[in-house]
Amino acid sequence: MPNSVKLSNGDRKRGAVKKRLSETTTSRLSPRLKALLARCRPGWSPLREFYFDEEIYRLDLEKIWRRGWLFAGHSCEVPMAGDYLTLRVDSDSVIVIRSNDGTIRAFHNVCRHRGSLICGEERGHAARLVCPYHQWTYGNDGKLLACRGMQKDLDQTQFGLHPVHAREVEGLIYISLASDAPAFDRAQSVLAPAFKPQGLNRAKVAKIVDYQIAANWKLVWENNRECYNCNVNHPQYIKANFDHYNADDSTARVRERMETQVRRSEAKWAVSGLAVSHKETGMTKFPDAERNIWFSANRTALVEGWVSETTDGRQVAPLMGDYRDADVGTLRARTLPNFWNHSSCDHGVSTRLLPGGPQLTFARVTWLVHQDAVEDRDYKLNELLPFWQLTSEQDWKICRNQQAGVNSTACTPGPYSTTKEYNVDAFVLWYLKMLT
Amino acid sequence: MPNSVKLSNGDRKRGAVKKRLSETTTSRLSPRLKALLARCRPGWSPLREFYFDEEIYRLDLEKIWRRGWLFAGHSCEVPMAGDYLTLRVDSDSVIVIRSNDGTIRAFHNVCRHRGSLICGEERGHAARLVCPYHQWTYGNDGKLLACRGMQKDLDQTQFGLHPVHAREVEGLIYISLASDAPAFDRAQSVLAPAFKPQGLNRAKVAKIVDYQIAANWKLVWENNRECYNCNVNHPQYIKANFDHYNADDSTARVRERMETQVRRSEAKWAVSGLAVSHKETGMTKFPDAERNIWFSANRTALVEGWVSETTDGRQVAPLMGDYRDADVGTLRARTLPNFWNHSSCDHGVSTRLLPGGPQLTFARVTWLVHQDAVEDRDYKLNELLPFWQLTSEQDWKICRNQQAGVNSTACTPGPYSTTKEYNVDAFVLWYLKMLT
Amino acid sequence: MPNSVKLSNGDRKRGAVKKRLSETTTSRLSPRLKALLARCRPGWSPLREFYFDEEIYRLDLEKIWRRGWLFAGHSCEVPMAGDYLTLRVDSDSVIVIRSNDGTIRAFHNVCRHRGSLICGEERGHAARLVCPYHQWTYGNDGKLLACRGMQKDLDQTQFGLHPVHAREVEGLIYISLASDAPAFDRAQSVLAPAFKPQGLNRAKVAKIVDYQIAANWKLVWENNRECYNCNVNHPQYIKANFDHYNADDSTARVRERMETQVRRSEAKWAVSGLAVSHKETGMTKFPDAERNIWFSANRTALVEGWVSETTDGRQVAPLMGDYRDADVGTLRARTLPNFWNHSSCDHGVSTRLLPGGPQLTFARVTWLVHQDAVEDRDYKLNELLPFWQLTSEQDWKICRNQQAGVNSTACTPGPYSTTKEYNVDAFVLWYLKMLT
Repeated sequence: MPNSVKLSNGDRKRGAVKKRLSETTTSRLSPRLKALLARCRPGWSPLREFYFDEEIYRLDLEKIWRRGWLFAGHSCEVPMAGDYLTLRVDSDSVIVIRSNDGTIRAFHNVCRHRGSLICGEERGHAARLVCPYHQWTYGNDGKLLACRGMQKDLDQTQFGLHPVHAREVEGLIYISLASDAPAFDRAQSVLAPAFKPQGLNRAKVAKIVDYQIAANWKLVWENNRECYNCNVNHPQYIKANFDHYNADDSTARVRERMETQVRRSEAKWAVSGLAVSHKETGMTKFPDAERNIWFSANRTALVEGWVSETTDGRQVAPLMGDYRDADVGTLRARTLPNFWNHSSCDHGVSTRLLPGGPQLTFARVTWLVHQDAVEDRDYKLNELLPFWQLTSEQDWKICRNQQAGVNSTACTPGPYSTTKEYNVDAFVLWYLKMLT
Repeated sequence: MPNSVKLSNGDRKRGAVKKRLSETTTSRLSPRLKALLARCRPGWSPLREFYFDEEIYRLDLEKIWRRGWLFAGHSCEVPMAGDYLTLRVDSDSVIVIRSNDGTIRAFHNVCRHRGSLICGEERGHAARLVCPYHQWTYGNDGKLLACRGMQKDLDQTQFGLHPVHAREVEGLIYISLASDAPAFDRAQSVLAPAFKPQGLNRAKVAKIVDYQIAANWKLVWENNRECYNCNVNHPQYIKANFDHYNADDSTARVRERMETQVRRSEAKWAVSGLAVSHKETGMTKFPDAERNIWFSANRTALVEGWVSETTDGRQVAPLMGDYRDADVGTLRARTLPNFWNHSSCDHGVSTRLLPGGPQLTFARVTWLVHQDAVEDRDYKLNELLPFWQLTSEQDWKICRNQQAGVNSTACTPGPYSTTKEYNVDAFVLWYLKMLT
Repeated sequence: MPNSVKLSNGDRKRGAVKKRLSETTTSRLSPRLKALLARCRPGWSPLREFYFDEEIYRLDLEKIWRRGWLFAGHSCEVPMAGDYLTLRVDSDSVIVIRSNDGTIRAFHNVCRHRGSLICGEERGHAARLVCPYHQWTYGNDGKLLACRGMQKDLDQTQFGLHPVHAREVEGLIYISLASDAPAFDRAQSVLAPAFKPQGLNRAKVAKIVDYQIAANWKLVWENNRECYNCNVNHPQYIKANFDHYNADDSTARVRERMETQVRRSEAKWAVSGLAVSHKETGMTKFPDAERNIWFSANRTALVEGWVSETTDGRQVAPLMGDYRDADVGTLRARTLPNFWNHSSCDHGVSTRLLPGGPQLTFARVTWLVHQDAVEDRDYKLNELLPFWQLTSEQDWKICRNQQAGVNSTACTPGPYSTTKEYNVDAFVLWYLKMLT
């Protein structure tokens, strides 16, 4: 039993964080939840209840999903004024629409009259948002423009669509369901320069694949935050990347290969203003609960001879964005709680998570290419898709399998590898801090 | 936000009803429910919780579905002694059977021995009701007639089927699951004369179509109680009827058309004893919580040139009941919580609702024609069905869409149109009164 | 209503047991549950809540399924070291594996690292148990052998698989999820001699059929514990057996037939050391809450001319075990909460129940024949299967139908037949005692 296991050094170092955790205000939590939280300890996986309990899922929605910034989609999915897409965060449906002034706006997809969904489709174009029930009509700025049949003394200014915060950053759209959204500027300052050369705002969607993962959203993130599992589970991924090597197994040969690639790339990329921002084996450290870092992006070298995250490392589509040379390594970004992206010289792949229940996560994987690229002429889906489709599906299978095990009453917290699962630990610390 | 919206005149008028509402005994309700009820206000849609909350659904079952009078089916579905049908009110299965003395009786479909269902089929004929498990045998009056294998000292008189109240009125069968059923005589006095000329007890079922509507039963009723949504959603319906015109949009031309039709009909129908009982545009006012009116029926004129609610207004089946002329307008009736019927000279259409869960309603639409009419000789289903099949399915789609919106945490109560949604408001007031 | 029914003699006799029941410590039960228990009375079926209530189902899992001995499978399903099967008790997945020393062991199918399922398949062979996520590797004795990538100071001895108790008795495998498993020796002393001549450890699986029964597991047992329902529901079964006759309907002719068969069998079987241990019409009495009898086995005569529980009574496969003559009657055994077996000279049929939810039971029926028998040469499935396949499916249908009735709010406890349902009563008393 974990309680009888002696503490490793890693445990002792994390003691300070844990202490702070317990001092955080948890007054609004139920006694039961407080007791569960008190039994979580750094360096170990959380109690199993955090992965299936309905009350905890509701708290996740309240404290994280309806408070933070969520990746909603890509600018190129709504290029013209009136173009919209909808998405669902648990039971909340949101419209993301390009308004007449060109800015992206977001609204709750709920008529202010009788609560009907306004847009029943996942995407479309609407000069005005008209509720299909009684035709209450809203502008794409959310204002109520007409409500034929209502009494004359109704103050229409009071019945605009409930707004949702929205931000657009270099082709990525973020929303926040919070009344007071947290600051976005630090995230913007990291994401904007990182994504600028990739040109996602001059991209087009080549393919969207949707998945239902029978697993809690946190299991999907924990899986994402380590490559301890990569050697066996991700044969395609490890051919392209150095990040499955960690401090403990980066042999002299591996370190030399990585350093050679970094040196070569730094020298070459400096000309185009691209910097290598992750230069070590192992994953970049993310997130950071103490410094409230829920966003990060970095550029790293691929293995020697690879210019794109494809099954053989070759370029499979026209160069994107500002790139004039295929040899740009990969741009990687992730924002909590629902987005990661790997982008190569010729394509980008975004993964968006949305919560569907305590044991259900919706994942959407979107492949983006240059806006002028033509399918079957400039790129083929059977070359573009496999690398991330296989890697994603390998991960979803792992997550489902882990959920089934975590559901067992015999499941007890286990220790994280200090060399390989530091980011899983960091994710859990971030998560627990958000709850409290 | 609704709280900051100034009250309309309609709101003020309804203040008196609201005051009475709050004085009603609510002592058995949970504090949470009382708080939700206290936040409902006349003229506005109820809080979203009323459409998905499990506790409220349970209360709906207790206070309304297991207390009031429910439409169960038509007399012509069980014409002979021993003919039965079964229906389910949430988890309660009920047998409606014609007993040997010719009267309709109803019983819980649960053996008094070990609780097995007795009738597994939806309809059938049984001289005696025999439990399939151990063959306990009941008469069609519910008495336990035999229980082979039980001890001799068992007092069989104590083990008749648990009874359910039943009434038959002009071809319509009503049941009540309550121990003390509410009075039926006022409903009888309204329904009997209205339905008498229609001859539903000399009818036959031409078609039954069953639907599962992914919506709370109250959303289905609220949809039924207004024609504010008709202009766009019901192109077939509005061709035949005047009731989608309301006080605010009944132009002089519309009023003149309606008055002409009413005058013409009154003069003509007087001969046959048929009265025009709804003579205005807009729907007849129903229900009425203050006067405990959960039943109503009226005859109204169709638009000029229409004699039946069909897609082109023409008669599509032989005349029913006492009618000797096709020009009899339409008979319309509705009883809360689960029945409405529109009947023309040649056919009648009944809609029966049954609750399946907080977000699930079973709807059955039944078309009735003269008992001697022969399909394909006297009527064709493709002429008989479309009007109400289309109208019904248009409504179910609206309800599902509304449920999806109401489930959003962003859904807030909205104001009802005083000219077009007076009956939705009346329904909600009736509902809230029943709860408390 | 039951409360007003006068008590039969049976009721009075059971008064003593009931008194003891109420004295049992129930301090950990919720007030609601105590109130429900207090309203149960011997000789009558329990309140309907016991068959669908989530809290009671959770208590069943805790007090019965995760405490007692569960039949898991047959020795012949895991003949070699490393052979394993998995099964699920509600959300707990268990691995049953033959270890290198030849003994059967069982472990929770949950990796001690991050909680992933280790074996994703229902059966297989594994020299070592390797978690698919990060390849933590366990011996088939449960010890953690390797965890590449973890910190060096991790004490691996603390991270063996969580053990599950396991016992093997004459070809049957039992497990217990309890920390302190109840004693198995009395069960062993009954089951071992009974099953020895049947030779299940020299058998092979001829067929497995899995069922999902939409009924609470207790309804399945109650159905199993009486043959009151057999005359009508089990036309195949009653042709072979005497146990559907009970004290009240065993005519002189029936008693004479049974006694003749018993006398004949006793004389003949004595040579082979087989004893007739159930010699009366009606079922053997089982279980016995007072003496904590949750296991039983007995041999009984089939009807004249029948040597196997097949549709025509003829032998359909080679003789099993120690039998040298087909005329050995049937061996019958049952252990609570999840196993029964009827075995004839040529084949055995085991039924294993596992709980899937308040209204869901998984049933697996397994047919076993001699290990050397070859399908289509020595036995045909269309001769082997029908007797128990039909009988089982007839029962599952009854159980589903009963669950639907019990779900009705109108379902009230009914009286048991003292001559035909004494074992149903005994089962309920055992169950209630286990809860408290």
